[in-house]
Amino acid sequence: MDDSLSRTLKEINPLDSKAIEAAQARQDELTKPKGSLGRLEELSIQIAGIKGRIIAGFEHKAIITMAADHGVVSEGVTLYPQEVTAQMVSNFLNGGAGINVLARFIGARVIVVDMGIARDLPPHSDLICRKIAYGTKNMAQQAAMTPNEAVRAIEAGIEIVEAEIAKGLDIVGTGDMGIGNTTASSAICAAITGEPVEKVTGRGEGLDNKQLAHKIKVIEKALAFNKPDPREPIDVLAKVGGFEIGGLAGVMLGAAAHRIPVVIDGFISGAAALIATELSPMLKNYLTPAHLSAESGHKVLLQYLRLTPLLNLEMRLGEGTGAALGMAIVEAAVKTLAQMATFGEAGVTKEKH
Amino acid sequence: MDDSLSRTLKEINPLDSKAIEAAQARQDELTKPKGSLGRLEELSIQIAGIKGRIIAGFEHKAIITMAADHGVVSEGVTLYPQEVTAQMVSNFLNGGAGINVLARFIGARVIVVDMGIARDLPPHSDLICRKIAYGTKNMAQQAAMTPNEAVRAIEAGIEIVEAEIAKGLDIVGTGDMGIGNTTASSAICAAITGEPVEKVTGRGEGLDNKQLAHKIKVIEKALAFNKPDPREPIDVLAKVGGFEIGGLAGVMLGAAAHRIPVVIDGFISGAAALIATELSPMLKNYLTPAHLSAESGHKVLLQYLRLTPLLNLEMRLGEGTGAALGMAIVEAAVKTLAQMATFGEAGVTKEKH
Repeated sequence: MDDSLSRTLKEINPLDSKAIEAAQARQDELTKPKGSLGRLEELSIQIAGIKGRIIAGFEHKAIITMAADHGVVSEGVTLYPQEVTAQMVSNFLNGGAGINVLARFIGARVIVVDMGIARDLPPHSDLICRKIAYGTKNMAQQAAMTPNEAVRAIEAGIEIVEAEIAKGLDIVGTGDMGIGNTTASSAICAAITGEPVEKVTGRGEGLDNKQLAHKIKVIEKALAFNKPDPREPIDVLAKVGGFEIGGLAGVMLGAAAHRIPVVIDGFISGAAALIATELSPMLKNYLTPAHLSAESGHKVLLQYLRLTPLLNLEMRLGEGTGAALGMAIVEAAVKTLAQMATFGEAGVTKEKH
Repeated sequence: MDDSLSRTLKEINPLDSKAIEAAQARQDELTKPKGSLGRLEELSIQIAGIKGRIIAGFEHKAIITMAADHGVVSEGVTLYPQEVTAQMVSNFLNGGAGINVLARFIGARVIVVDMGIARDLPPHSDLICRKIAYGTKNMAQQAAMTPNEAVRAIEAGIEIVEAEIAKGLDIVGTGDMGIGNTTASSAICAAITGEPVEKVTGRGEGLDNKQLAHKIKVIEKALAFNKPDPREPIDVLAKVGGFEIGGLAGVMLGAAAHRIPVVIDGFISGAAALIATELSPMLKNYLTPAHLSAESGHKVLLQYLRLTPLLNLEMRLGEGTGAALGMAIVEAAVKTLAQMATFGEAGVTKEKH
């Protein structure tokens, strides 16, 4: 294992228990029945534990959206042609995609990363190019990437989030773009959770029953051929993963090493979280799953991670769109803890018991 | 029935089917797989149907939080003493409550209304006084209010929302404060849905099992004594309701009559929606239920209304806190429809079929 990744894994520490206690104590003094803000209370306490103190809000928010292509699309597992990955990245750079609209709405910047798109994009001031290769190989016939490429993808993610932290970053959301990446994510999910492929494979952009059955067969073939070792997350990522998935795993690990909370988007980000939490079980404390994706398999994945999504809006777009909405909920939580008056301050009588 | 209420009921019209078609057609042209924004797509189409066109966003947002006291608290159905209603209203006016924090976060103004608090509050420039009486009567022993008071409460709500519309209002959320108002809301819910009291009665601010059993008995007694007619919503409101509940029903009706979307908060707002939709079944098209409250009974109520909540964050604070978060989701939906690029604009290839 490479030095930069090992170093990051060592830097992921437990949450600050004193800050958690202080946040819980303050929650119980705020002018509301105890527990009545439900998950907002939990979130506010988690964020205090990550940051080591009760914070006023998030000044710097970013969604890191990573794009890459997947050799497995040559098996006919998608409705959209591969060129859509690059086209959508241009759409991100022009501000016209769902993630742009939602990130603007919540006041977050969008970081667009080429982790391995199948063709070269014209240079753009807002595009970070960390292309590992021109798409993965077709995992139904060979390993998607080499173990070295897998580590490089994760390390690129670490470096990218560290560069954003250097610019100012209080919370980060993850997002993805990659035609074929639900196929890779289902393969990762089946490999790591041990669940049957059909249970963790969904319709992606809208496959019909026949197309879904074919997708399941392709994934089963990829797993049978590659035999990824579930105890070795780098092996799983290399054999049946994707460059953007590796990159996002790196973003999560790098953020946690610097005590930055991570709001994870849907199924693809979830697959990245599977890889990343296998590398560092402690990481889980830094993750908040934004929403339950309509992509079947996401539920299985989150149950395996024992993470409960904040939202269920039947979204399945990716890009970080769910993460953007989830980040707004997390910010709402942080602000209630910081800004609400206590019973003492407001002169409100506490409950009888 | 009084003129102002009758007139409002006549002014609630069906949604604009042409605007709905146009919104659906635009959704299908936006750069994403069809349907992949899930409930955001539905919401954006509903709002277009309400407004009669695709809108860019909400310039003027308000949460109307109505407060009143409940005579039934003398039966010992609450953990907090009655004076907390007035104390919390002062907290609202000082900006220290949950609703203040969340409304600031989403950029909404908070309108605080005294619909019937048991004591006089010091005058405050931000407090609207529409006190119908100093709290309702104890519904376990008599009708909570007269039919005339019930109509006046609803009409006060209509007038208040109309005054806000005159100032500029694009979307409104509802909120409540009133020690004892889950008891009234459960009684309304049982009366209108016909479900057993124990199925629609929850722990309010945190009752234990014994206290909950007592609350259920009190509600059963109130219903047995008053015999509200489920086909007569004014009768139900008068016999087992509350002034803030009537006021909120009026807000919903008045907003819909002026084609303003309404985001309804939790259980108490839900009880108001039961009253209001019985008065005007068409109203339902204008309502968006923000969240599923942790107060048991809310689920039954929403199922009866056939409304699916946007969020489930285990909140049970009231005040409009859920509505504030729901309003942010609705605004996100509207913005994606208005601002996302189409396939044609972005040069993105559509799916193969």
